[in-house]
Amino acid sequence: MVGGHRWHMWFYPNGERPESADSISLFLRLVDANVAEALNVQSIFSFVDEHEKQDSAHIRASKPDNFSSCSRSWGYPSFMKRDTLEKSKHLNYNCFTIRCDLSIVTATDLFIKVPASSIKQHISGLLLSKEGTDVTFVVSGEKFAAHRCVLAARSAVLKAELFGSMKESTIASVIDVEDVEPRVFSALLNFIYTDSLPKMEIGMLEDEGEAQEALWLQHLLAAADRYALQRLKALCEEKLCTHTNVSSVTTILTLAEQHSCCGLKEVCFEFIKTPANLKEITAADGLEDIARTCPSLLKELIAKFAS
Amino acid sequence: MVGGHRWHMWFYPNGERPESADSISLFLRLVDANVAEALNVQSIFSFVDEHEKQDSAHIRASKPDNFSSCSRSWGYPSFMKRDTLEKSKHLNYNCFTIRCDLSIVTATDLFIKVPASSIKQHISGLLLSKEGTDVTFVVSGEKFAAHRCVLAARSAVLKAELFGSMKESTIASVIDVEDVEPRVFSALLNFIYTDSLPKMEIGMLEDEGEAQEALWLQHLLAAADRYALQRLKALCEEKLCTHTNVSSVTTILTLAEQHSCCGLKEVCFEFIKTPANLKEITAADGLEDIARTCPSLLKELIAKFAS
Repeated sequence: MVGGHRWHMWFYPNGERPESADSISLFLRLVDANVAEALNVQSIFSFVDEHEKQDSAHIRASKPDNFSSCSRSWGYPSFMKRDTLEKSKHLNYNCFTIRCDLSIVTATDLFIKVPASSIKQHISGLLLSKEGTDVTFVVSGEKFAAHRCVLAARSAVLKAELFGSMKESTIASVIDVEDVEPRVFSALLNFIYTDSLPKMEIGMLEDEGEAQEALWLQHLLAAADRYALQRLKALCEEKLCTHTNVSSVTTILTLAEQHSCCGLKEVCFEFIKTPANLKEITAADGLEDIARTCPSLLKELIAKFAS
Repeated sequence: MVGGHRWHMWFYPNGERPESADSISLFLRLVDANVAEALNVQSIFSFVDEHEKQDSAHIRASKPDNFSSCSRSWGYPSFMKRDTLEKSKHLNYNCFTIRCDLSIVTATDLFIKVPASSIKQHISGLLLSKEGTDVTFVVSGEKFAAHRCVLAARSAVLKAELFGSMKESTIASVIDVEDVEPRVFSALLNFIYTDSLPKMEIGMLEDEGEAQEALWLQHLLAAADRYALQRLKALCEEKLCTHTNVSSVTTILTLAEQHSCCGLKEVCFEFIKTPANLKEITAADGLEDIARTCPSLLKELIAKFAS
């Protein structure tokens, strides 16, 4: 039953007509004889292993055919030459399975196309257009204009700063931000309006890019934590994992501890525990910094060896 | 090749061990012998027709197993009793196909979970919280508070009204809206913040609900056209198609013509062209209104009969 009607697949192993005797024929047939209106049907025949043809986008892209009481069959008198089938990968111990996907197109589907949701693009467009900004952040002398309501919707910390009872809410429209670099604040704003991790603005030598990005990600993670942006924090954690190496892992581990990133911490522990890495790290006295700044991490690391 | 390694599926039709001689055994085996680190693998065996098991969410939900140079196989000594298989629908002319889906889990996948994008919920939350609203619309005495920047981002017409050089931009914070019902304006605002067609607020008798909804959709479509909200307009068109019947079709057709809804117009023409509907419409003199208000539509309808 599709669309309230019964359908059959008709298969002729030696062709439906004499002129297609060397082929297999395949037809889709509407079983019900008393159909009031013509049905507009999109259909695709495929072998069961041809997954790409069974995708709904692929089916919808097929030319629709009309089925009605007068015209109840539609298909391929010569779907495939029989000897092609016999040599094909679709044949498995002399068996094959043919699948027919069909969808019935209504007039509504045919004539009315609803545009995709665009609210995300509209909100990210606000950051570019700067239309109606009502607050300016000053970061090391650089100015960033933004919309209070968007910031408040996205970050509970910014909401409290901008609308809460904290002192800053009475300061009208200019807010000084300390301890954050402009390029990090710019990325933070970008995330607030787009919900994606932005790319680092490039402005350094190629070979320094990798290390610079790792540093930028660490600062961005700290800023995400400060403004309670959980998704940005996790995106930074995920990206930092790809920057973990024997020289960076201890710095990243300390950062993870400071900002309560349990996942990133575990990834660092796993990395350090790997025998080859551990050998290299201890040879370079890489755990010295941790021993000084955060000895409890060493205790946790030892417990990992026990497990 | 999955994750840079070669894999085999091992199948024992009479069981791998004497104790599973009445079953089929299935194993996944890592072909490469020199694997430096243990691989964390999630895998699912399924018959090729068991599509639900081949879903990536299903595979990711499986318990991961460790594969390494020392431990290269993992599987089911007794996957299924042989006589169960022989009676099952998976057997097709004495053939069956088994599929193994596998994914290799990295430490990052295992420990770091990135929350889904939430910007849509955050923006729709602004309408409920009313935090930081900076403009009020007065519609037949009812007040609706909103955020200028969100309205401007979503509707070019509202952007011009609120920030453009039009007279209304100088009016600070209260805007009178004429020719729109409060419940229609409320739905319009709802769409602006959520990008979805809201449900009609219910406040009438059950049996009047259907006709009331059709009327509400017509007014909402007109409002969507006025504020250049293409997606809302298309959503209304789509929904109105389900309300098309012999008594409503001519009103809907006139509305479609007034607001340049080509798709909805085509759907109405198709409906009127259907012999049974046409008979009923002409018997009730349903085309009289169109003949008076919009005779060009009758010309178009006649052309449809010719095609």
